[in-house]
Amino acid sequence: MLLAEEFNTYLSKVTYALSELEGDNETTAGPSSLQYWLERALVDLVPEQYALLLESLPPGARQMAFRLLPAENQKRIFLAMQEESRRALIKQLGPSDAVALFDELDAQALLELAEELPDQFINEAFKRLDKADKERFERASRYSGAMAGHWVNFDFPLVYGSLKVVSAARLLKRLDFPFVDSLYLQDKQGILLGEVPLKDVISAETQTTIQGLLGQKGECIQATTPIDEAAERVILSGRMALPVIEDDGRILGRLLLSTAYEHREELAEQQISVAGGLSEDEDLFAPVWRSSKNRAIWLGINLLTAFLASWCIGLFEATLQQVVALAILMPVVASMGGISGSQTLTIIVRALALGKINDANRRAVLKKELRVGIVNGVLWALIIGVCVDQWFGQFLLGLTIALAILVNIIVAVVSGVLIPAILVRLKIDPALSGSVVLTTVTDVVGFVVFLGAGALILT
Amino acid sequence: MLLAEEFNTYLSKVTYALSELEGDNETTAGPSSLQYWLERALVDLVPEQYALLLESLPPGARQMAFRLLPAENQKRIFLAMQEESRRALIKQLGPSDAVALFDELDAQALLELAEELPDQFINEAFKRLDKADKERFERASRYSGAMAGHWVNFDFPLVYGSLKVVSAARLLKRLDFPFVDSLYLQDKQGILLGEVPLKDVISAETQTTIQGLLGQKGECIQATTPIDEAAERVILSGRMALPVIEDDGRILGRLLLSTAYEHREELAEQQISVAGGLSEDEDLFAPVWRSSKNRAIWLGINLLTAFLASWCIGLFEATLQQVVALAILMPVVASMGGISGSQTLTIIVRALALGKINDANRRAVLKKELRVGIVNGVLWALIIGVCVDQWFGQFLLGLTIALAILVNIIVAVVSGVLIPAILVRLKIDPALSGSVVLTTVTDVVGFVVFLGAGALILT
Repeated sequence: MLLAEEFNTYLSKVTYALSELEGDNETTAGPSSLQYWLERALVDLVPEQYALLLESLPPGARQMAFRLLPAENQKRIFLAMQEESRRALIKQLGPSDAVALFDELDAQALLELAEELPDQFINEAFKRLDKADKERFERASRYSGAMAGHWVNFDFPLVYGSLKVVSAARLLKRLDFPFVDSLYLQDKQGILLGEVPLKDVISAETQTTIQGLLGQKGECIQATTPIDEAAERVILSGRMALPVIEDDGRILGRLLLSTAYEHREELAEQQISVAGGLSEDEDLFAPVWRSSKNRAIWLGINLLTAFLASWCIGLFEATLQQVVALAILMPVVASMGGISGSQTLTIIVRALALGKINDANRRAVLKKELRVGIVNGVLWALIIGVCVDQWFGQFLLGLTIALAILVNIIVAVVSGVLIPAILVRLKIDPALSGSVVLTTVTDVVGFVVFLGAGALILT
Repeated sequence: MLLAEEFNTYLSKVTYALSELEGDNETTAGPSSLQYWLERALVDLVPEQYALLLESLPPGARQMAFRLLPAENQKRIFLAMQEESRRALIKQLGPSDAVALFDELDAQALLELAEELPDQFINEAFKRLDKADKERFERASRYSGAMAGHWVNFDFPLVYGSLKVVSAARLLKRLDFPFVDSLYLQDKQGILLGEVPLKDVISAETQTTIQGLLGQKGECIQATTPIDEAAERVILSGRMALPVIEDDGRILGRLLLSTAYEHREELAEQQISVAGGLSEDEDLFAPVWRSSKNRAIWLGINLLTAFLASWCIGLFEATLQQVVALAILMPVVASMGGISGSQTLTIIVRALALGKINDANRRAVLKKELRVGIVNGVLWALIIGVCVDQWFGQFLLGLTIALAILVNIIVAVVSGVLIPAILVRLKIDPALSGSVVLTTVTDVVGFVVFLGAGALILT
């Protein structure tokens, strides 16, 4: 296992070897130097880190480095890469080379890939599964990626309840995953009977049946349960996995604790990405056109709101002409409102995600945020008012901006509470679009109040 | 276990019972109704969910609801609450009631609390630990919260290597945690010898020593390893825990997979909070003064950058007076730059956190982002230029803004790559302050280029 610093060294060495390769053919560094570092990295890094190393290289180099890998390592590293990076790599490798990656996959890995790769690859890979994995894949792939049934793991001991302890012990000895903490029991129809802790098997009489050791059935997850909820339940259970069963009670597989956490982390990352107009897990070296397109859409939405703000300012053209200081100070009003609102929004969106807010306690939250808004509104209205008075030597200008700051900060915190509530009612995810709606409100309110007050007080 | 919807029902019922209690004493709803729902929730919710329920209530109600809990539930629910909520609750309960919470804590729980509660409580709770836990606490608390040694778990079977298999089986039978997947072995000095999978114990000869079953020693974590790095290693290991050892090789405890993931999630949440000027895990109902103070500091920093932008605009006072349309369009230029820059910044900060970027491949990243910037810069310069030309009927104004948009978007994406690099070199976390520095740059560049070009072209 490597520390971050050593990973960094490999990244430098490999990038350096690559740049020498591209730039100057006469130096001693060449493919052999690149190969040397890639091979050393292969020894020292786990597949997840090696995947990270590849993802840190531009596409051409990434492909070259990947092809230099021994075939037996390619598959594991490929599986450890990010979705978008995998898709890009498959395209670069071309169908004939890519198919080799799908040799000897297991059902769980193929289920994960099924969500992201073209059908032709999945069909090809399916043919290469062994019989048991074919059946597992077929059963689990009936559940979409939004359901718990799609994300199950199959590496656990599952035995018939009628099995004797002595036979179970023999079976466990042959098991090829060393660390297990329980046996799952099923009846002849495949219905899950429950789970027996391994430690109870150790001290049991050799001739009793495993079923005799069964206590309570324990918690199960239905295969159709939304994956978000299933993940929460696994995390709350304190177990390293929970069994996933089908409608008829037959066991499909287990949902691992690590899958549950990975799912939750991915969700959080996606929200940040999508809220900023990025694709779900944009590759550092995604094709320029794809990156540009994703981001352009968000820039377009933003432009509409910016034009709306401009149009509001335009309503006060005459005032601006008379008092140009208003134009100079506009960004102050807009940004103080924007920041206050975002602070409230961040807290509210997080509380909503945890389920901490509903219609019943929203009034109490609003009251608290309103108080915070009044405190900060008064504070900053005074400070900014005095600063502007000193800067421009106009008391009335200071008064105007103080008024605008006070109103805008209070409107901003109230909006921070209410906008997410409205968006939820409209079935729009507030984590994705709350921020742009909020900034539009604080911009428009800020400009209108500031320039409106200016028109009344100063002209 | 409850679904999110049912949790929501409880939150509504409890909040409603509370509001009736506050508002109108004559209705039938009263403390008994509140108590009824709190007790039902106690049956249906796990402690983590009940803690969430409490955190969704305003402080007064939260305290009341907590006091209504049976003593045996208070402790587990208290431990499931967030750090800041716990601190607030302790204050409300007062020393005498609070101390009862610390009865029969275990060492792991107390270590977690030691990071956040006043010493007087920790000392009181320490007195109430049993002898084994006192020793565990003392050993682990020598490591700060930044180190792996502070976050260890003690619930696992640890035996001497010289133990016979038959005795180990007897010991496992008495164990009070049902699900274990391995035995940890130590020698007489407490030095960790390694880990034996439980399944190997089952099929072993009863008279062999446990040490005879030991294969490779397996991965260990030093107690002084930074917790961030230790967490990554546990996650990469694929195990549900890794042993944590001290300098002399003695085993201190285990770092659980769930602790590792919780740590990583907390880190991500803290970054979002702190980057927005919130306290690390602000309670939904934190005291108004505390919330206001945290947020005010960030508003103050933001004000300085806003005044800087205003000062830049002020340089072009004469131009603004002549061409008031420039004032109207300023927000468009600033916000298009701000959004473009944030998109790049989001990708770069995430890649930095994963270690995907260093000096060696930064040039390649910059080249890619620059291309994206040129594509979007040209696209939006054209669109906005044409829109403005149509809106104001001035070709030269359209030309001016097109120029400013093009320059500002390109500067923004380049800044999105370079600002984090500079901040890292200055030892400032780019996840925390990247955004404010970036917006300052895009505001200033946007205004100066737009108004500067306006001065040259339009006056």
